[in-house]
Amino acid sequence: MHALIFDLDGTLIDTVYAHVFSWQRAFEEAGMAIDGWRIHRRIGMSGGLFARAVAREIGRKLTDEESQSLQHRHGEIFMEISPQRRPLTGAVELLKFLKENNVMYGIATSGRRPEIDKSLEALGVGDDVVVVDRGIVVRAKPAPDLFLACQQRLGVSPLECYVVGDAVWDILAARRAGMLSVGLLSGGYGEDELTSAGAYRVYRDPSELLTALDELGVLD
Amino acid sequence: MHALIFDLDGTLIDTVYAHVFSWQRAFEEAGMAIDGWRIHRRIGMSGGLFARAVAREIGRKLTDEESQSLQHRHGEIFMEISPQRRPLTGAVELLKFLKENNVMYGIATSGRRPEIDKSLEALGVGDDVVVVDRGIVVRAKPAPDLFLACQQRLGVSPLECYVVGDAVWDILAARRAGMLSVGLLSGGYGEDELTSAGAYRVYRDPSELLTALDELGVLD
Repeated sequence: MHALIFDLDGTLIDTVYAHVFSWQRAFEEAGMAIDGWRIHRRIGMSGGLFARAVAREIGRKLTDEESQSLQHRHGEIFMEISPQRRPLTGAVELLKFLKENNVMYGIATSGRRPEIDKSLEALGVGDDVVVVDRGIVVRAKPAPDLFLACQQRLGVSPLECYVVGDAVWDILAARRAGMLSVGLLSGGYGEDELTSAGAYRVYRDPSELLTALDELGVLD
Repeated sequence: MHALIFDLDGTLIDTVYAHVFSWQRAFEEAGMAIDGWRIHRRIGMSGGLFARAVAREIGRKLTDEESQSLQHRHGEIFMEISPQRRPLTGAVELLKFLKENNVMYGIATSGRRPEIDKSLEALGVGDDVVVVDRGIVVRAKPAPDLFLACQQRLGVSPLECYVVGDAVWDILAARRAGMLSVGLLSGGYGEDELTSAGAYRVYRDPSELLTALDELGVLD
């Protein structure tokens, strides 16, 4: 019994650059200008952790209220500039193939319902798929909680799970969960960053992963 | 006699993520959806080359009119979502330090006037600085023409020039010009991508480069 546990943003849905831009605008409006690349490399962490990490770059702590307000404003801008959600190349086909070939999979994301609902809909992910979101666990990535909650619901041992993600936070959380991981370049990290973090393999996007499933040993 | 030749977007000015988002929207409006990371990794090429490269990803050639129209629409969206230009951390201080210490420098960008005027203004770059833009040369990066035109105006041999850039296209164009290069992470590439392309050193941003000028041997 094997299973694939997917991250959502940057792994299955093409939202990373809209998130970076939305965070950058939210911080700027709050008088805290921060370089785009520093935001990019922190996307995929829990929102609270992210806001605090970015605040450290700015050089002062944020109050809980400020952090909440930044997260809220980020969400507003994101919905405004990115009303549509577009699956990454090959994402829909990959999930379809896994289903047809009885390879178990789930989704574990630092995002929250209802914000992620449009993404799931765009992917054609229905109620039959295990989806673990930020609201279900106490700590989001890079803590292992999201992946462990997903694995438990799938009923597969951590050693039999591959995490598929685009950020070093996915790879780190996978290691802390005792799982192997596969990196995708579709979130804008470089191959070496993902390999150095511990990814077993790195593929360009879901489309290339689909052609390489044999390398993971998850097909019968 | 040494000189530093700077790229502009992603190297001195924090515009890469706004450019990615603007290109993505321009292509989407034209019915050509393309993944954000593929755009990101092509930023910094000449606009025409960029539009054709992206079109190849989509699988069909663009007419010259389509290419022009995409570039025009990208410019419109960029100006709309990003009315302000923000220097990257340490960029203003770096240029000021170079001037005060009589280290020659110039700017060579695939961007065009008047689009780049706001960026130069935000950096405090006046008429006394050599600025070579896309309009001056036949071929933009990764051709060496921009860097060679800048070096000739500075009157320094290519072997005495360091190109400073954030994209592999800067590093490639520098090699084709017979120049050394320094990479910055501030455009969102990974360190290894820049080193593999041939960068002599990689720093986080202009601020870190300022503290490391001794490593380049450009100070008296």
